[in-house]
Amino acid sequence: MKYTVTFLPDEKSVEVEDGARIAEAAQKAEVFINNLCGGEGVCGQCKVQVTSGRAEAEEQAQGLLSEEEIASGYVLACQTEIHDNLEITIPPETRMEEAKIMTGEAAGVSRSEDDKPLVRKIYLELPPPTLEDNIADIERVSRELRRKIGWHSFDIHLECLKGLPEKLRDNDWKVTVTLARDRDRYRIQRIEPLDTTNRNYGVAIDVGTTTVVAQLVDIRAGEVLGVEGSHNLQASYGEDVISRMIYACGRGGLPPLHEAIIKNINQLIEKLVEKHNVSKEDINAIVAAGNTTMSHFLLGLTPCSIRLEPYVPTADEFPQVRARDLGIQVSSNGFMETIPCVASYVGGDIVAGVMSCGIADHPEVRGLIDIGTNGEIAIGNNEWLVCCSASAGPAFEGGGTRCGMRAIKGAIEKIEIIDGDIKYETIGNAPARGICGSGLIDCIYELVRNGIIGAEGKFDRELKHERFGIEDDIPQYTIAPGDQTETGEPVVITESDIDNLMKSKGAVFAAIKSLTDYIGLSFDQIETFYVAGGFGSFLNIPKAIAIGLLPDIPQEKIQFIGNSSLTGARRSLLSENAFEKCINISRSMTNIELSNYQPFMDEYIAALFLPHTDRKLFPSVQY
Amino acid sequence: MKYTVTFLPDEKSVEVEDGARIAEAAQKAEVFINNLCGGEGVCGQCKVQVTSGRAEAEEQAQGLLSEEEIASGYVLACQTEIHDNLEITIPPETRMEEAKIMTGEAAGVSRSEDDKPLVRKIYLELPPPTLEDNIADIERVSRELRRKIGWHSFDIHLECLKGLPEKLRDNDWKVTVTLARDRDRYRIQRIEPLDTTNRNYGVAIDVGTTTVVAQLVDIRAGEVLGVEGSHNLQASYGEDVISRMIYACGRGGLPPLHEAIIKNINQLIEKLVEKHNVSKEDINAIVAAGNTTMSHFLLGLTPCSIRLEPYVPTADEFPQVRARDLGIQVSSNGFMETIPCVASYVGGDIVAGVMSCGIADHPEVRGLIDIGTNGEIAIGNNEWLVCCSASAGPAFEGGGTRCGMRAIKGAIEKIEIIDGDIKYETIGNAPARGICGSGLIDCIYELVRNGIIGAEGKFDRELKHERFGIEDDIPQYTIAPGDQTETGEPVVITESDIDNLMKSKGAVFAAIKSLTDYIGLSFDQIETFYVAGGFGSFLNIPKAIAIGLLPDIPQEKIQFIGNSSLTGARRSLLSENAFEKCINISRSMTNIELSNYQPFMDEYIAALFLPHTDRKLFPSVQY
Repeated sequence: MKYTVTFLPDEKSVEVEDGARIAEAAQKAEVFINNLCGGEGVCGQCKVQVTSGRAEAEEQAQGLLSEEEIASGYVLACQTEIHDNLEITIPPETRMEEAKIMTGEAAGVSRSEDDKPLVRKIYLELPPPTLEDNIADIERVSRELRRKIGWHSFDIHLECLKGLPEKLRDNDWKVTVTLARDRDRYRIQRIEPLDTTNRNYGVAIDVGTTTVVAQLVDIRAGEVLGVEGSHNLQASYGEDVISRMIYACGRGGLPPLHEAIIKNINQLIEKLVEKHNVSKEDINAIVAAGNTTMSHFLLGLTPCSIRLEPYVPTADEFPQVRARDLGIQVSSNGFMETIPCVASYVGGDIVAGVMSCGIADHPEVRGLIDIGTNGEIAIGNNEWLVCCSASAGPAFEGGGTRCGMRAIKGAIEKIEIIDGDIKYETIGNAPARGICGSGLIDCIYELVRNGIIGAEGKFDRELKHERFGIEDDIPQYTIAPGDQTETGEPVVITESDIDNLMKSKGAVFAAIKSLTDYIGLSFDQIETFYVAGGFGSFLNIPKAIAIGLLPDIPQEKIQFIGNSSLTGARRSLLSENAFEKCINISRSMTNIELSNYQPFMDEYIAALFLPHTDRKLFPSVQY
Repeated sequence: MKYTVTFLPDEKSVEVEDGARIAEAAQKAEVFINNLCGGEGVCGQCKVQVTSGRAEAEEQAQGLLSEEEIASGYVLACQTEIHDNLEITIPPETRMEEAKIMTGEAAGVSRSEDDKPLVRKIYLELPPPTLEDNIADIERVSRELRRKIGWHSFDIHLECLKGLPEKLRDNDWKVTVTLARDRDRYRIQRIEPLDTTNRNYGVAIDVGTTTVVAQLVDIRAGEVLGVEGSHNLQASYGEDVISRMIYACGRGGLPPLHEAIIKNINQLIEKLVEKHNVSKEDINAIVAAGNTTMSHFLLGLTPCSIRLEPYVPTADEFPQVRARDLGIQVSSNGFMETIPCVASYVGGDIVAGVMSCGIADHPEVRGLIDIGTNGEIAIGNNEWLVCCSASAGPAFEGGGTRCGMRAIKGAIEKIEIIDGDIKYETIGNAPARGICGSGLIDCIYELVRNGIIGAEGKFDRELKHERFGIEDDIPQYTIAPGDQTETGEPVVITESDIDNLMKSKGAVFAAIKSLTDYIGLSFDQIETFYVAGGFGSFLNIPKAIAIGLLPDIPQEKIQFIGNSSLTGARRSLLSENAFEKCINISRSMTNIELSNYQPFMDEYIAALFLPHTDRKLFPSVQY
């Protein structure tokens, strides 16, 4: 028995088997709904309204919905089976919209003459064979290549030998060789008739947990032709890496997650080649960077032991693979490199970031802070590198708080309280729908500065203010009253929200502090802190310092960089040296496992204050 | 429209489309018939008798059949289309029977401890990860491997990473790694649960133009478990390399020839694993040796420019390939190495031979003579190596002579004329069916020694002897009268046969002489001549010297070796050093292109006498 499910407002319909869940139907229809807990029925973020037809949700899940909601036909998509033709309306807060995806700087990159891309084309005009010079065809090609590039041995794929004699003889001995670098070797990847050196493209990819971003690069020119981003389609299986791992290592299995990310990449490549009028057959290389779990999913490797103590990945360096073998639609011998990882929770995205901001190139000590659901910190110079990772929770990405949302249209991103009056700005100046990470930081800062909450993050319950109230014994403060919001519901921040945010900022700061203590440096001995991550671009630095998220160092020493993972992937595509540097960084960086590190636990407890239990650490903070 | 064709005496039936040729039907039915010219309708060796049904041959082809034969329903299989249900009888002379296939010495080979096979298994018991030691699973495997074998970097196939965490954790961290050598690198080819080191097999293959021979080798023990040989199935497309190249580069295309040899190999492997109770999944490596054209066919490379001046192969070194990618049914990551070649007409079989008889290992100058349709000569020592190849024609392999045949049952292999009486021996003591190469050498020797032919190979036309006659103006001599033969037809040798044999032996000797002259050595400066090839095992050395095929040096300096190509392939499988030696030999051997070399032409003309125009070269020859 099959039923038709129609999703509004998209008006997308899909047929599903009896008993399928609404979340599965949505996924099939490519309607993206929030799914923070990975379909476990515990986050309540996937609530949808059944506006036609009859659907019954499982009992236990209903606790996450108010009585009014239940009366209006709201159910949790992940917990509700389909036994009828349904029309389902996705409320705005459940909808996972195209975020304002950060795609990194897309400027052209100049490249020095002796810095070669991972794949390049070389045009050769060969002397035809004679009885005195009748070496094998491939040896004739190799000999001329050696004359041009001075390297002495080439791996050759059997495919390149097939049909070679005809290619040479039918084209007056003029061919273009595509030469790929694989670790310390060169490989002849392709031999084409005549001169095709003007067609050599590559793709750099940042495989983020939330978004996947791809850049199309003209390798010869060293130029970015375009960039596209999209939601990671894996979101249907869980919002964060942990819930996706649980899915992959449990009932769902690995294939859906692997296939989702491959689909993401193919869709992005499809868009890029269409827009920029490039043939997929001319894409010869891909460099992808992602956290360790994403890298495993990308390559079809099981991430199951990453999640469990002692947190062991299958691999942290990955072989170069033929892209087609993974189902990625590019040139038939085109390859993919995956930026190596350091450990289970310090991935290739961090390695690419450390490489791209040059931390390992100079004697000065610098740091990189990448804030997402995990906060990863790397500190070092050209002689040493250490890193760590702390689970920051989803608060800064819009999860785990009552009105939290991603940095998309309608999200409150700036807040100021002046003389008791709240001023806020939303992304796109749209009616408020919720608060994104940067808004939450502002919010906490303003609440503590104005004495509405204390240093421990608790409201003064005696406070008399129209915006303050206590509901179900939880104090809350209204940021945008219902008459200013899209849904008519007020946007509020609750004491539990603040508690979650305190834990998040505490974890990030404790990680920074533990790492600097570990290496015996004070903050002011660090020349620059680079801050990266989707979160970074909306961050108010002084307020982030004031709530104790970032260390209290002069603002000019904190520098935003874009999507440093993508930048690092692109640089590696365009430079053998850069890619090699990534390998060296991944091998030489020392990972401090914080989950087992007592000083981190102590720092974490100490950081659960605003700005910190030790005010001496935040001398510039004035409230 | 389809017709059924039944072949007798095999009673094999097959259905074919209207218009298919009998030769194609025979091939489909796996009934092997002679096909010297590659289906061009010029050799007449594929004559068959249509004993039921109606078949019309093309006009031009009938010149090769006598009127009586035509009246009895004989046609040429390669020239006759099928437009009826047919019953076809294959006469014995047309049938290509299982030859007494030379499989080389199959004795065990001892191997020194530091000489590693191309693929080996190493059992590892890993320490389980802890929080203090939580490197990636594959790094844990590599680290232990390094401890055991002291090498520092391993290529890893993505397939080996898939499912690795489960393999380790479900088997108490006990695994067996299969380690493959590829040029200067090691690759982890397979990781199996628990200890499987007792199951590591390989196959050595000699891909001959006529026969394909495979040895199953227990790699750990360094022992040959068994050997199987079969006709090269490519024979259906032409008997020698030239006609097969013409087929592949013309109407037929490359795929049938490639597929035929893969089928050969799979059939041999199938027989070997069944007989020796080994799983194909445990065959981890194959080493194949063949002439340059066979190596191309094996790998699916076009050999078309090999045949045409200036005789250029696609490649003479070949990449290691995954056997499964070629359709060879062994372990899923099992690989195949192909012994490298020197030039278009000096192949991997010669390289393997030179390696296996140790020519490149000692300061003494030694030579290898491999006699087949081509005669290949290699001479050298541990400092230099030269080689050449001369087309010897098919005479020594039973082609190009009236009653010539292969060294199979019923072939006359020894002849003696005592006081005008002929004594001969046949293989298997069967009624005579024809004369094989060694019989032809004996025959010429006896004829000239008894004054029946002169030094120029011509009969004394005035000769009065019951065995002598002139037919169609061609003198001929009867070796076996009709009453002693299988068919009732006498086995004879004609003046044209002798002419062909003179050309063959002249070409081989001229090649030896040209090469020794080129390097400025006299025959007696060469310590040993190794003689190899399917031909070699039936050769009477003194008679071969006496007709001027081999140089006139003391008999003890000429040494038969078995199938040196197979021996070389097996040694390479069992020894990284041996395989590397093959690569070095192929790169360092200088090929003298005789087709462009005037001294060879002069030597050839001078050698068209018995034993030679220059008697001083054959002082020991007494007639």
